[in-house]
Amino acid sequence: MNTRIEFDSIGSMKVPSGAYYGVQSLRANNNFHITSKKMNSKLIISLAEIKKAAAITNRNARLLDNEIADSIIVACDEIISGKLHDEFIVDPIQGGAGTSANMNANEVIANRAIEILGGVKGDYNIVNPNDHVNMAQSTNDVFPTAGKLAVIKLLPKAIFQLNRLYNALIIKSEEFDGVIKMGRTQLQDAVPIRLGQSFHAYASVIKRDINRLNVSEKEMRTLNLGATAIGTSINVSPQYLYNITKNLQDVIGTKVSQAEDLIDATQNTDGFVTVSGALKSCAVNLSKIANDLRLLSSGPKTGLGEINLPSMQNGSSMMPGKINPVIPEVVSQVAFNIIGNDFTITMAAEAGQLELNAFEPVLFYNLFESIETLECVTKTFVDNCIIGITANSERCKELLDQSVGTATALCPYIGYKKAAEIAKKALSTGETIRNIVLKDGIFTEDKLESILNPIAMTEIEYKVDQFAI
Amino acid sequence: MNTRIEFDSIGSMKVPSGAYYGVQSLRANNNFHITSKKMNSKLIISLAEIKKAAAITNRNARLLDNEIADSIIVACDEIISGKLHDEFIVDPIQGGAGTSANMNANEVIANRAIEILGGVKGDYNIVNPNDHVNMAQSTNDVFPTAGKLAVIKLLPKAIFQLNRLYNALIIKSEEFDGVIKMGRTQLQDAVPIRLGQSFHAYASVIKRDINRLNVSEKEMRTLNLGATAIGTSINVSPQYLYNITKNLQDVIGTKVSQAEDLIDATQNTDGFVTVSGALKSCAVNLSKIANDLRLLSSGPKTGLGEINLPSMQNGSSMMPGKINPVIPEVVSQVAFNIIGNDFTITMAAEAGQLELNAFEPVLFYNLFESIETLECVTKTFVDNCIIGITANSERCKELLDQSVGTATALCPYIGYKKAAEIAKKALSTGETIRNIVLKDGIFTEDKLESILNPIAMTEIEYKVDQFAI
Amino acid sequence: MNTRIEFDSIGSMKVPSGAYYGVQSLRANNNFHITSKKMNSKLIISLAEIKKAAAITNRNARLLDNEIADSIIVACDEIISGKLHDEFIVDPIQGGAGTSANMNANEVIANRAIEILGGVKGDYNIVNPNDHVNMAQSTNDVFPTAGKLAVIKLLPKAIFQLNRLYNALIIKSEEFDGVIKMGRTQLQDAVPIRLGQSFHAYASVIKRDINRLNVSEKEMRTLNLGATAIGTSINVSPQYLYNITKNLQDVIGTKVSQAEDLIDATQNTDGFVTVSGALKSCAVNLSKIANDLRLLSSGPKTGLGEINLPSMQNGSSMMPGKINPVIPEVVSQVAFNIIGNDFTITMAAEAGQLELNAFEPVLFYNLFESIETLECVTKTFVDNCIIGITANSERCKELLDQSVGTATALCPYIGYKKAAEIAKKALSTGETIRNIVLKDGIFTEDKLESILNPIAMTEIEYKVDQFAI
Amino acid sequence: MNTRIEFDSIGSMKVPSGAYYGVQSLRANNNFHITSKKMNSKLIISLAEIKKAAAITNRNARLLDNEIADSIIVACDEIISGKLHDEFIVDPIQGGAGTSANMNANEVIANRAIEILGGVKGDYNIVNPNDHVNMAQSTNDVFPTAGKLAVIKLLPKAIFQLNRLYNALIIKSEEFDGVIKMGRTQLQDAVPIRLGQSFHAYASVIKRDINRLNVSEKEMRTLNLGATAIGTSINVSPQYLYNITKNLQDVIGTKVSQAEDLIDATQNTDGFVTVSGALKSCAVNLSKIANDLRLLSSGPKTGLGEINLPSMQNGSSMMPGKINPVIPEVVSQVAFNIIGNDFTITMAAEAGQLELNAFEPVLFYNLFESIETLECVTKTFVDNCIIGITANSERCKELLDQSVGTATALCPYIGYKKAAEIAKKALSTGETIRNIVLKDGIFTEDKLESILNPIAMTEIEYKVDQFAI
Repeated sequence: MNTRIEFDSIGSMKVPSGAYYGVQSLRANNNFHITSKKMNSKLIISLAEIKKAAAITNRNARLLDNEIADSIIVACDEIISGKLHDEFIVDPIQGGAGTSANMNANEVIANRAIEILGGVKGDYNIVNPNDHVNMAQSTNDVFPTAGKLAVIKLLPKAIFQLNRLYNALIIKSEEFDGVIKMGRTQLQDAVPIRLGQSFHAYASVIKRDINRLNVSEKEMRTLNLGATAIGTSINVSPQYLYNITKNLQDVIGTKVSQAEDLIDATQNTDGFVTVSGALKSCAVNLSKIANDLRLLSSGPKTGLGEINLPSMQNGSSMMPGKINPVIPEVVSQVAFNIIGNDFTITMAAEAGQLELNAFEPVLFYNLFESIETLECVTKTFVDNCIIGITANSERCKELLDQSVGTATALCPYIGYKKAAEIAKKALSTGETIRNIVLKDGIFTEDKLESILNPIAMTEIEYKVDQFAI
Repeated sequence: MNTRIEFDSIGSMKVPSGAYYGVQSLRANNNFHITSKKMNSKLIISLAEIKKAAAITNRNARLLDNEIADSIIVACDEIISGKLHDEFIVDPIQGGAGTSANMNANEVIANRAIEILGGVKGDYNIVNPNDHVNMAQSTNDVFPTAGKLAVIKLLPKAIFQLNRLYNALIIKSEEFDGVIKMGRTQLQDAVPIRLGQSFHAYASVIKRDINRLNVSEKEMRTLNLGATAIGTSINVSPQYLYNITKNLQDVIGTKVSQAEDLIDATQNTDGFVTVSGALKSCAVNLSKIANDLRLLSSGPKTGLGEINLPSMQNGSSMMPGKINPVIPEVVSQVAFNIIGNDFTITMAAEAGQLELNAFEPVLFYNLFESIETLECVTKTFVDNCIIGITANSERCKELLDQSVGTATALCPYIGYKKAAEIAKKALSTGETIRNIVLKDGIFTEDKLESILNPIAMTEIEYKVDQFAI
Repeated sequence: MNTRIEFDSIGSMKVPSGAYYGVQSLRANNNFHITSKKMNSKLIISLAEIKKAAAITNRNARLLDNEIADSIIVACDEIISGKLHDEFIVDPIQGGAGTSANMNANEVIANRAIEILGGVKGDYNIVNPNDHVNMAQSTNDVFPTAGKLAVIKLLPKAIFQLNRLYNALIIKSEEFDGVIKMGRTQLQDAVPIRLGQSFHAYASVIKRDINRLNVSEKEMRTLNLGATAIGTSINVSPQYLYNITKNLQDVIGTKVSQAEDLIDATQNTDGFVTVSGALKSCAVNLSKIANDLRLLSSGPKTGLGEINLPSMQNGSSMMPGKINPVIPEVVSQVAFNIIGNDFTITMAAEAGQLELNAFEPVLFYNLFESIETLECVTKTFVDNCIIGITANSERCKELLDQSVGTATALCPYIGYKKAAEIAKKALSTGETIRNIVLKDGIFTEDKLESILNPIAMTEIEYKVDQFAI
Repeated sequence: MNTRIEFDSIGSMKVPSGAYYGVQSLRANNNFHITSKKMNSKLIISLAEIKKAAAITNRNARLLDNEIADSIIVACDEIISGKLHDEFIVDPIQGGAGTSANMNANEVIANRAIEILGGVKGDYNIVNPNDHVNMAQSTNDVFPTAGKLAVIKLLPKAIFQLNRLYNALIIKSEEFDGVIKMGRTQLQDAVPIRLGQSFHAYASVIKRDINRLNVSEKEMRTLNLGATAIGTSINVSPQYLYNITKNLQDVIGTKVSQAEDLIDATQNTDGFVTVSGALKSCAVNLSKIANDLRLLSSGPKTGLGEINLPSMQNGSSMMPGKINPVIPEVVSQVAFNIIGNDFTITMAAEAGQLELNAFEPVLFYNLFESIETLECVTKTFVDNCIIGITANSERCKELLDQSVGTATALCPYIGYKKAAEIAKKALSTGETIRNIVLKDGIFTEDKLESILNPIAMTEIEYKVDQFAI
């Protein structure tokens, strides 16, 4: 392999001649063989966007030569368009608060810019990774900003799928509006509910999660570019400080603002904790819905059997004909993973010290995984499960008719104690609530019919008359 | 002990004659010997407020006899004022989704109301726990509502202390504005910062936490009273459904509203998860600040020693004269506890099934502890630590002068590589950055003085001239 | 209130004349109003045991005056027997690595010893909390040792209940050995199982937990007494160092040993993490069993209804006749709490720095709660749930007969694909597997009877013949 | 793309002609686009080992045709040797309790075996994925077994690195045995320690972790092969049941045994929780050590600066000459990740229901990542950090001399109170402890020298004389 020699404070090192990355990326690559995975491409793109905005700003401030700035900008655009990502060789979990990721970007951009200017890779006199590409920046403002920009790119895709989920659930809630069934609390027969109401409740909770995620996303839009090393804006020109955020906004095409307290913004990662917290809430709700669907579709013969999930694949390698709720199962699995990730993120955030949090790499690694898997799993949840769910109306009705939960409706008329005795008697004798009550002669048949009408028990609209005494 | 006999669906049981609680509370007490603790008094008061609002609403709807309603209201007022709390005998961690807590309230209120009406405790023909006190209610709307009301009571006290902390930190940031010191990233010497800036950053992050807690608190104000068992409002009169929230609002004196989707609101506990998530973010930030204070005050002789924490107690049972950072330590401990509680809360929320979450008791137990210990620990943090912190300005200056981090300020003039060489040389020879640079003759002494002025490195305002090339 | 004045390094303070605690306890009490709870009594007793053993050892080493030593020993014995616990006034969550707890013990013991010797409380010339009671000790060896001794006291009680649970499950497994039912995987009908087998599986996993807890408990028996402040045994006489563990062993009556590396033993808390990890595993298994019991007993009419849990209390404040699985619910709640506690314990352990872990108080607070609630919840699980479970054999049989899961047994004879077709046909037509197969004439009726015999499907012993081709 | 048509219970599907995987793998691939990662290769190899052992066992039992068995065995050997792994296309996080992973293995092996026998891929009459490759197996015994075998392969590599770490720490403890320095508790000056003692303590705790991991690994050796669907061994011949484990043992070359209670072993995943718990304990200890190293090496000028970590890479993109503790930082990051993974694993384990845990895929995904990243990070910890650490003996001595912690050594002679006064005086005046004491004339100079000798304070061996009064 042809190599070139590069130097840094540690010493010298051979770098493959064709490589756009340089000595610092390579050292980091040697130091951190942890996950054998690549950094998230949205993080790479975000780094390039920042470098582009910085080059524009420094050029405008006449601190960076036009030619160098322009070549940096072109190199950044290539990365933004998806090129050169293979040159980002540092492990997503890396020591050093993201310096390796930042230097990997600086080196790739410098070398590509050198090439554009007709130079030979490694000739950093032409374009220097630190002095030109990283001008007026520090890892400590670049890396957290890149993390936030990546979240801004990833989160809407997850939210888009959650909106699809919301819509799919609303459609199902309408489709199942007429399916009357038994409600269950603590897995015990309670009182009637319409299946559509259950699905509407699922929709409602997802809507709340969407709102929360949207609120938390706003925390990602306060950036610390211009803060440099510790938030004091050392080595930053006023022209840069006051324009970088606006220029970055133009590059990325979405609104961002500069933190009022740059020192705070450089050392604290609680914004990410907040996003992860919103993801965790959402995971909790998704898993709860998934669990419900598995319960309601349990069977086909020895379970509740009130709904059918679409058959997506053979359920068993040995039990013929078995179909399993594989999609809800994977939803819960992703939920568990997001919850575990949240705790890693929490610990990483808590571990920050003094002017910096050096644990952002693992924080980002987990946060990006949480968002991306949430997007993916929600998509399959909608497409391969929710939209194909059908109701077993007859089974629902049959179970409802067997139950004694409707005795609850008697309470306002005969009191809890008497109603309990009737329920108990119905359970032990198998006689229906209706028959037992009729014998007592307390109600006329018509009145009783109206009281025990399960549909009327499911919504206030249905029973306005009942209390119009 | 004198006893009376009470009956329920399970059978009969002896209850102490003097007890206001009844058979159902006693059974629960026997079933759940878990924590040997009492339910939170704010939860008990909230239960009484709900019962009072319900009695008012049912009376107005002419479904509850005036005399009974009024005696219930009086009994509730007594509990709200702090009386009879000893009669709440069920363990805070209890099976049954809070039914035992709700019935404990129903029984205590019924028996007190009976007494008020001149009856004998246990004579439920006069006032019945289920039919009268619990009229138009179910544990499943009462208990989550009580939990939310308790949070609404507890959280502002924690936020109050956080606001005190914010103010104390702001005062310190002003007091320490002139203390110049070395900033550290990854515990390594970075570039200068003013101690006041550090404290301002602490204030800024706490302010964000206060905002988040306030936002999350809003989720507590959407209630499901009127939902009864599963959100379908079974056994509820329209008069009750449409007035209970307003009447409750009058009782508690703060704004609340009724959930649009009562079924969702009855089965999901994600609002509590959100509050706990905000508490967790706050815990993370508090612990980070506490850790910083321990670092900065480490010593007195072999640590950083840049600040002094007030001496609150002897630090050691065997090492004479030792004073330890006991308040920051307890802050971190409470933070860890809040974070662990958040996980319990998350699991409890995820475990909800179908129309109900039966795990609210353990959720509340942890949530209330998180809020209350946050309040208490923030109070001691302010009173026994923050306000007494003093700066060791000389020590700060001395360390700063020894360091070579100011070499960073040379980069815009001579480039990263050259600056690194100077820094390296300074470290190995012990010569100052200033002297090494002066020898080179690159800068005039005046210019160099201006470049290496540490104060000027700490804020953009100080260096507007620097870049006015 | 009468008071006496006491002095410490911070200054002077009024202490109630009657108090056995002194100035340092009082300062700690003022500094730490966190949980408003008391320290665990087993921790208090353990502290007293250590102080007693230390007094004995120091007396034998002729470093402590006989009279003083003897009065200390008597005071310790009183605390061990349960007296004076009210004098332990410091919050269980406290800064300072347990110094406050240790000094609280030192002060109470000193003042009681002074009293015994005819002195006046507060006259530390007679018996000094630091020089006499704490002689040759530091909080840093006393407090972790006390924590371990407390675990050694608490854990066997939890294990005892787990053993009772194991036995109860074994008895049930025998009682239900003949109850044939459908097994379910992923909540879908699988193949037959005997209910007794299910309960035996529960017993087996609990047995494994008992073993793990016993193994983890051994880690509690390696102590660092004699290490003093940081493990270097400063201020410790060889006579003390080499005899204290043996003397402590005599005091507590159970085997313990001294750590080989006292510095390690003083700074690391991983032994507690290991105990908590074993508790967490157990919590996972208990919750899984509890969830199963809730599923199997779901109904009474619209659930699986294969077993009945004993009715322990009314299930609902509004739904008459409803009985809920309150005991399994509380089991899961405690499990969630133990799991959350484990996270707090993990964070506390990770936060240790250099020669000490200052976060043991919150670690102990959580660990003791985990063990004690595990004990309590297991007791109620056995007494109020497991032993009263009955099987609905007919319901089990009826569900089994409806299912098509027995088609699995055809695979070895006709292959997976053909068996799947038969299962599918049975599901869609409602015809039995048996009838469909018989029509095909593949098997004689006798052979088919033997193949489709559900009991024979449940254990290898039953089907030895089947494969004896 | 050329395709073939394959059929399953769901219908038909086009599969690429060249693919070894079949319709079921492809469906799963469509259903689960979650992580965009591949299954762990050790899991794939373990699946092949199981399939090989099953083919041998079924052949020996004369239930599987020799020719088919042999072709399956050859196909398995190819996979074991690392071939065909690209054909495993299902996402590691998948619904269905691993059925997709198992069927992916069955299909790849069947098609390769078909090819070996001269057939065309997809012609399952020759070798059938379910009837032949999966003979006598279910996903429910194959998948957990494969998970355990994968752990057995992965864990020793992590333990190997931990042993290297242990050895490296022991070497350092010897190298630094003579470096006397100040010990710190709660970051405050305590009493002297030798740096070698600190490193020995690190070694001691790592040794304990190695032991725990080895103990937990044993839990992986109890397998449920032969259990099939739910542990009842349905469709399993006695010849298979009684020989499969022995045959698997021969294939893998390491000792394993069959679970006594196969039903328990099929439904419970607590063994994995135990391994993860041991990993978590280890993560806690590694992070604690990493934190210590960062503290001790903090500086170079404004920190503790007692040790130097080897310079592995430039520390900053903007601060010249800055070197950061990147390796300890990545150690803590991996630790946080392992701890978060542990909670995902815990939740997955708790979610098991009745006869199966359907959440093993996410459990394995996290567990394998924990083990592999532990291995990798420990390797870089040893190679790029520990072995290159050097001590700043003079700095250590200098700090020690400044401190007043040695006053502790006076306590046995003059009491805690008097010693505290001296320490306080030394701190406020700057005078040395030695001088203050000398003035008092309590001790001869020789005696005082011996008392205040810091080396003598660090180990009992050094001070045997001291107490030989």
